[in-house]
Amino acid sequence: MEVIKTVGVVGAGVIGASWTALFLYKGFKVNVYDPYPIDEAVFKKRISANLNDLLALDQNAEHSYSPQDVLLHLEIFNHLKDAVSDVDFIQENAPERLDVKQQLYQEITAYCPEHTIIASSSSGLKVSDFQKEALHPERILLGHPFNPPHLLPLVEIVGGNLTDPQILKQASEFYKQLGKNPIVLNKEVKGHVANRLQAALWREAFSLVEQGVCSAEDVDGAITSGPGLRWALFGPYINMQLANQKGFKEAIHHLGPPMTEWWNDMHAFQHSDETTELLEAQTNQLLTQYKDIDLYETRDKGLVDILKLRQQLKLD
Amino acid sequence: MEVIKTVGVVGAGVIGASWTALFLYKGFKVNVYDPYPIDEAVFKKRISANLNDLLALDQNAEHSYSPQDVLLHLEIFNHLKDAVSDVDFIQENAPERLDVKQQLYQEITAYCPEHTIIASSSSGLKVSDFQKEALHPERILLGHPFNPPHLLPLVEIVGGNLTDPQILKQASEFYKQLGKNPIVLNKEVKGHVANRLQAALWREAFSLVEQGVCSAEDVDGAITSGPGLRWALFGPYINMQLANQKGFKEAIHHLGPPMTEWWNDMHAFQHSDETTELLEAQTNQLLTQYKDIDLYETRDKGLVDILKLRQQLKLD
Repeated sequence: MEVIKTVGVVGAGVIGASWTALFLYKGFKVNVYDPYPIDEAVFKKRISANLNDLLALDQNAEHSYSPQDVLLHLEIFNHLKDAVSDVDFIQENAPERLDVKQQLYQEITAYCPEHTIIASSSSGLKVSDFQKEALHPERILLGHPFNPPHLLPLVEIVGGNLTDPQILKQASEFYKQLGKNPIVLNKEVKGHVANRLQAALWREAFSLVEQGVCSAEDVDGAITSGPGLRWALFGPYINMQLANQKGFKEAIHHLGPPMTEWWNDMHAFQHSDETTELLEAQTNQLLTQYKDIDLYETRDKGLVDILKLRQQLKLD
Repeated sequence: MEVIKTVGVVGAGVIGASWTALFLYKGFKVNVYDPYPIDEAVFKKRISANLNDLLALDQNAEHSYSPQDVLLHLEIFNHLKDAVSDVDFIQENAPERLDVKQQLYQEITAYCPEHTIIASSSSGLKVSDFQKEALHPERILLGHPFNPPHLLPLVEIVGGNLTDPQILKQASEFYKQLGKNPIVLNKEVKGHVANRLQAALWREAFSLVEQGVCSAEDVDGAITSGPGLRWALFGPYINMQLANQKGFKEAIHHLGPPMTEWWNDMHAFQHSDETTELLEAQTNQLLTQYKDIDLYETRDKGLVDILKLRQQLKLD
């Protein structure tokens, strides 16, 4: 594996800007490309805000250089070829359209060096479906982050049918070097892992409101006053373990039968114009609670604080 | 509504001990009853630990009396009749068996004063199914907490067919007075709201491991490095709002179609001896990560810290 020095970021939206900040903060040179002209002032402002989050999170403060210094290692390109011709790792954040990705990967692999590892941030598409026509399909993998990528440690890694397993290991090592928590899936599934888990929760969250059981405000309150607080500390398996003093099997013995009844009682919610109207109206009602705070700022400040807390509790 | 001065706690397991600590901490006299003899030393030790959590959480420190002082207001009874004959509010935490609850509510309402409000901690049963034969069904409601009840703010409130709507309001006020965040459901459903949301997540968490997509360790890592961190701050509706800079409707417009594909791809996991064996083995493997920490202590310390953080962020 070549030493990674320069990273290409393809796609400079919110996700691309977040990745760019992380790569810069960790000391890499970053080449950024987007098919639409990038407003450099706006982009750099976003990067600077992300860098400040990373500084706030960094207990060691070993990377205590200023955002200004770090930004010197950022270069913005108007042509894909120029952006990727000498990079060692590419993080692709293009729109979630199969035809777009298929075309893009053909171009990327035609222009980038042979050793370059190419990771896709795709939240739902399978690498197998867009690597086939590429020149070097074996170097293409999924490296799916969670929003905002500069803060949330999760990266989901999985190869397509043609991906070299060694590349998955190298990518995993690289993400660890960035301070991420990569998980390597055994096989490709639609939506990977975290988005499927999240979608399962959303389905019942939407269904309960559609069925008139409670409001969107109640659903959000139920999560943030209840299980959501625990999920920041432990996942579903450890939470099940803790649900019974005698452990996991006994917890399933007690909770399994009623849980099965709840599962059987759940509706298979489907989106429609009507449900979107209803759920949006309920969300707008809920938003009035938050009119005095900036939601994005509050989320990112909260994430930094919870990540620090997890370090103190020796959970990370 | 009579002023609530004395609270009866029926059922002195982990949930009962947690409620007891909260009622004591908030200045109420508490009468505790359990059909099995209560080991007073063990019970009081548990209460003291819970009281220390509450002290740690209390920013105002207005309740700065010692656990010893507070415990003077605790009385343990061997007979249900003696325990509930002069209480103003009852929190019932009996086993989750319909026949047990039906019998118990007949007895409670035969012994307690006519004005007493009686709330059930039942996690899955419907009040309508166990209030019918009681002497005062109109005073019985669901008041479902989330574990651990002395820390997690959520209380789910809903009446049965025979419950007086005024009682729901009074119970909601009482829980607010205790510092809880009660949500009042519009109608009874199996598992209420939070347990259904949690069960939806568990179903996919179990299914992904059963299907061999990833390990239990990966699932838990995906949550605690990803969406779990956000759910401690915002629920599913606000998270969807934040998923797109243009708001909820635009987020659904983009995420709805792939999400529907993920839903359609999900398996309807069912518990069996084989799945329990598999998932327990995976959980045991995961537990080796945590061998140096006390999971319950870490969870409760973490919950106190996250609740404080939410106050600082003006989210509660």
